[in-house]
Amino acid sequence: MVHSTQTDEFLHIKEETVCAFSTKMCKSIERMTKMLKMFTTQLTGLFGRLQSKEEMEIENAARLLAQATVGDGSIYIKGFGEMAGVAAEALQGEEPLEGVRELQNNIAGLTVADRVLLVTRRTTDPQALSFAEKLMEAEIPFAVIAGKVKDAEGDLEEKADSFLNTQTVRGMLPDETGGRFGFPSLMAALYLYHGVKFVLDEILEDY
Amino acid sequence: MVHSTQTDEFLHIKEETVCAFSTKMCKSIERMTKMLKMFTTQLTGLFGRLQSKEEMEIENAARLLAQATVGDGSIYIKGFGEMAGVAAEALQGEEPLEGVRELQNNIAGLTVADRVLLVTRRTTDPQALSFAEKLMEAEIPFAVIAGKVKDAEGDLEEKADSFLNTQTVRGMLPDETGGRFGFPSLMAALYLYHGVKFVLDEILEDY
Repeated sequence: MVHSTQTDEFLHIKEETVCAFSTKMCKSIERMTKMLKMFTTQLTGLFGRLQSKEEMEIENAARLLAQATVGDGSIYIKGFGEMAGVAAEALQGEEPLEGVRELQNNIAGLTVADRVLLVTRRTTDPQALSFAEKLMEAEIPFAVIAGKVKDAEGDLEEKADSFLNTQTVRGMLPDETGGRFGFPSLMAALYLYHGVKFVLDEILEDY
Repeated sequence: MVHSTQTDEFLHIKEETVCAFSTKMCKSIERMTKMLKMFTTQLTGLFGRLQSKEEMEIENAARLLAQATVGDGSIYIKGFGEMAGVAAEALQGEEPLEGVRELQNNIAGLTVADRVLLVTRRTTDPQALSFAEKLMEAEIPFAVIAGKVKDAEGDLEEKADSFLNTQTVRGMLPDETGGRFGFPSLMAALYLYHGVKFVLDEILEDY
């Protein structure tokens, strides 16, 4: 084993050699290091916000979904776009959500004893909104995970029986043209999903 | 607006009232707060590890995948189990991976100009291993995102042209019976995927 100072020195020399070999490659490594660091910092901030701001609503959503299992219903899950990933985690993950079913494009066959979890990018997503309206008509209670769009009227937050805000509606990193990129919508939704599952499992264990 | 000390006092009283009303509910809120805090801390640690340990390999994976776009090939993505969520993000997210295609169960039609990204829970997953072998036979280079199982021989790390370790192969929280739960496999994989995409976009922009 090499002494740590030696290792540091070796790494330093190696990096210099790389930079001498190709300034462009070196600049690209620097940029990439900076980008990944910023993304990590932003994610840490995001999960901190989700933990403090959504805690009570995570508990509420879990209680709402638990009513299906405690009663005669089932929990159905539907993710729009990339949020299908939350359904994949709930259905095919190592720790699937007990008794959960995937919801297709229509709600035929669902009853008022069922509970639904809708997951979508933003509270204003048209497809999710029209789906939510169908659930309301059929009087089927549902929870929503989505990024709250400010000042939007008649959005998913208003329609949902329980609303979990992903606290993210745009990319986390600034680009060189004033835009933003790095939009971790699915990561934020999964954080909330895991939280809901923790509580749901506790409720069903006690039951 | 209320003075902050008054607000604190109000919240304190409110919590006591809830606890007097139902000790069980209060205990459950306490447990839930602790669990979510632990999960958040563990995730922060995980993303920190991914950032420092996988940085160079993120760059390598991006370069490997970029060869498809720069050449005459396409980037294909395949996620096993819950890792289908990474494919959903790449294909249906707000910032889709340029020119990416979803790979089904066979590799017929792929050429050596194509590049593949396989995402699975662990480096020992049989389905992913048999898929990797098909790719090797056809001489199609591929990158893998998976949790490295210690001391596993002939695993996906050995087979892959570029290997990204999710650094997580089990749940992050201890339960009361000595087991573990809260396994953020998809979240960790998405972190690495976002990293690869940042670099890939940069490479393709320069090109």
